[in-house]
Amino acid sequence: MSRKLEKLYRRIQKLTGNIKSSEVSDVFTDIFSESTHFLNKFNRSDLASKIPNKKYFVFDTGRKISRAINADIYLPAIGDWLALVHAIHNNDRPRLSSEKINRAIYCLAISFCAAIDLTKSGDQKTPGTFFEYLIGHLFSARLGINPRTNLPVLNLDMNTTLPTDYVFDLGPNQAKFHLPIKTSTRERVIQVWAHQRVLDGVYGTGRFWGTPVILAETKTDSRKREVIEICLPEQWRIYQMHIAQLKRIYYLDVPAAYARLNEVFPPLCVKPFGDFFGEVDILISPLS
Amino acid sequence: MSRKLEKLYRRIQKLTGNIKSSEVSDVFTDIFSESTHFLNKFNRSDLASKIPNKKYFVFDTGRKISRAINADIYLPAIGDWLALVHAIHNNDRPRLSSEKINRAIYCLAISFCAAIDLTKSGDQKTPGTFFEYLIGHLFSARLGINPRTNLPVLNLDMNTTLPTDYVFDLGPNQAKFHLPIKTSTRERVIQVWAHQRVLDGVYGTGRFWGTPVILAETKTDSRKREVIEICLPEQWRIYQMHIAQLKRIYYLDVPAAYARLNEVFPPLCVKPFGDFFGEVDILISPLS
Repeated sequence: MSRKLEKLYRRIQKLTGNIKSSEVSDVFTDIFSESTHFLNKFNRSDLASKIPNKKYFVFDTGRKISRAINADIYLPAIGDWLALVHAIHNNDRPRLSSEKINRAIYCLAISFCAAIDLTKSGDQKTPGTFFEYLIGHLFSARLGINPRTNLPVLNLDMNTTLPTDYVFDLGPNQAKFHLPIKTSTRERVIQVWAHQRVLDGVYGTGRFWGTPVILAETKTDSRKREVIEICLPEQWRIYQMHIAQLKRIYYLDVPAAYARLNEVFPPLCVKPFGDFFGEVDILISPLS
Repeated sequence: MSRKLEKLYRRIQKLTGNIKSSEVSDVFTDIFSESTHFLNKFNRSDLASKIPNKKYFVFDTGRKISRAINADIYLPAIGDWLALVHAIHNNDRPRLSSEKINRAIYCLAISFCAAIDLTKSGDQKTPGTFFEYLIGHLFSARLGINPRTNLPVLNLDMNTTLPTDYVFDLGPNQAKFHLPIKTSTRERVIQVWAHQRVLDGVYGTGRFWGTPVILAETKTDSRKREVIEICLPEQWRIYQMHIAQLKRIYYLDVPAAYARLNEVFPPLCVKPFGDFFGEVDILISPLS
């Protein structure tokens, strides 16, 4: 990646101890402008989209292409991002629509990932970790508390700690959140339900809301210049019935096949992540 | 890998439709002799073992090293292998000790994997698939039926199939087996319990015995020439209590930290895979 982008990424890594801070927002703001600036040097090529009603393109260096980018969501507006983080840190309800919030976060996330795609080979880790920081930051800034990544387990003759994804504990009689964060899930998604099941088992069902946040489920065939979405909706329904119940599944780019799960049994609420900022106060209430 | 080994591997792939057949055993016999013959061209170097009471070495081409091999189990005896498959196909109880059976299977598995390590770069898939074929073959030959890899789900308004690891259905009122096969598990192991939970939920608890078979949990530091075992015993206990109950966890090279789980709550039976051939008749009985 560009030297500047690398430096900014390192800066985020150093600040993760207080990931909710407005200082972290400021670094993300710089990453937003630097990534989109970097990508503007390259051509955009349209992909043949096999997904009904969704258009995708890639940034193209001539030698390498980025991951697929949703053309309807990728409209970088740094002003919306600034309005979002300003509202969050001032405990205001953001005045932006859920759609604009979602778009701003998508643009920031996908532009950084695309910049990595164009400059590094086979680096899955940096985009994944970056995305985890970004969503972890927004979630914790909105809730006003930092996450933890392990929980004590006291169970008669056991006394140990359970490593977890980010979890947020708002205190007695308040909601607790279980926040897995992934750039895509594929067949590994069963882990999210399994971790939720463990939390339900150890701390009681309903104690933690499982609210995974996922970037997208696109897969690009770089030879054919085609994009598809890899979705396993029937398996999700089985997991939601038989492993544990997730409260929300947020996407920045909601896959068509998962959006339809909102209409069938079992209840499985798949939404754009932009919706979170408006509905979190309802989710927090213990009887939601 | 050597041309001959590659050809034999392809041959197995073609025979997977009837994986229990004695023809498959014959190809594995050839792979056993070819892999060990191939490895004999190279030097052995001892590793510094950080695992109490276990000694490991690697095959070393000078430029590349193989995965860690347990020096106490790696004593290739093709006669034991031949006696095992002969007994299996003739419905005899093998007259070999469980230890000799385990050793023969370990030698075949690890020698093929080591040959791949020395001849290919970063190929995790071939060893994994090979190991799946080998264990799938032995399991199905012993039970006398071929596995399937999906199950129908009928659930009021759902009618779909669930993709699974190998599952074996011995018929009405007989045991059914759920057989995940991995060369190592690390943090992905939660998937095994989660799949068991789904089977319990869809078909009823106790309908499928979960009996995963795993090669080893070693990790080699090739620079320091050190070997460790990566184990998460406390997490396994939590999974066994809160996700689902596995009947057996078989290893070819049983990790020290998991062997100790046999002595604590919850019941978690970790054994050498060699034991399976003697105890399967007990497992099959519906009240076992």
